[in-house]
Order: sequence, then structure tokens, then C-alpha cells
Amino acid sequence: MQRVHNVMEDAVTDLLQQQWSNLPASCHCDGCKADVYALTLNRLKPHYVRMPVGSMYVKAHLMTVQSRATILTALTESVKRVSADPHH
Amino acid sequence: MQRVHNVMEDAVTDLLQQQWSNLPASCHCDGCKADVYALTLNRLKPHYVRMPVGSMYVKAHLMTVQSRATILTALTESVKRVSADPHH
Repeated sequence: MQRVHNVMEDAVTDLLQQQWSNLPASCHCDGCKADVYALTLNRLKPHYVRMPVGSMYVKAHLMTVQSRATILTALTESVKRVSADPHH
Repeated sequence: MQRVHNVMEDAVTDLLQQQWSNLPASCHCDGCKADVYALTLNRLKPHYVRMPVGSMYVKAHLMTVQSRATILTALTESVKRVSADPHH
């Protein structure tokens, strides 16, 4: 079967890499970062596309100011949850 | 960063492979199958986990009768949509 990809992963990775050092996490280890990443993706509606068709269009859409704000809110909430109960 | 994985992908792949020949798709080509797969994943809540922690537990949960029924409903709806407007 042809490959599919959740382009929300790319949008969250971009923001997480940009913001990780600024986010109020109790621990900045790689395990906690991956938990924040997974939790954030679970809070956001997925955008799977068949590769490579459509992925650039959806990526552009996810980089709008509104989408970035939504993703940043989900990131911040995930940081709070992982910080309260870390599983390094 | 440690890898994460949406275990819903595995659950949908399993059911899609089992049911693809029985689903009322207007076209059974590989492109339409991938579109049905992507649309179905977009209709279901994602279950990202940090790998390999947790993936077996969530996979077991997604294989319950109730989860399979939910996934099969999403698959059937996606088949209808792709069949009405195929993008081979």
C-alpha cells in the first residue's frame, strides 16, 4: 500500500524544536520531550495525507498563525501534564 | 528525540487488510486504498505512544470488539467518500 503521513507531526516537531527550551517543563530530558510530543499529537486532529500528494499543501495550512497558536496551546498543556508525572 | 508512533495506524491497517476485498469500494487500486487508509485515520482519535513504551498495551486495547466496530465504521464511511470522488 502507498505510504501515508500525518503532517501534523511535522508542524508539532517544528514548534517543539523552536520552543522546547522556553516551555516550563520540569525536566528537559529526551524521554520527557518525546512524551510531550506524543501527548500533543493526541490532543490535535490528525491530518493524514497520501504521500507525496497533498503534503505540501497541508503543511502550508498548518503553519498559519491560528494553527500555530492551537498547536502551542496543546504543547503547553502537554508540558504541564508530563511535568506533573514524568516517566523519563 | 525518541521515536513516537500512532498505534491506531496498526489497528486500521489490520482491519483494512482483512476487509478491503469485502468493502464496497468503486475501485480497489493501491492509490484508492491509501486514500481510504488516510481518511479513516483522520476520522479516528490518534493514539501516539513513545516507542517502544506502551505500544503493546494500546494495541491490545484497540483490538477490543468495540474499538474494531468504531474503526470499521470509519473505514466504511471513508470507502464511500473515496468511491464518490476517486483520486487514483
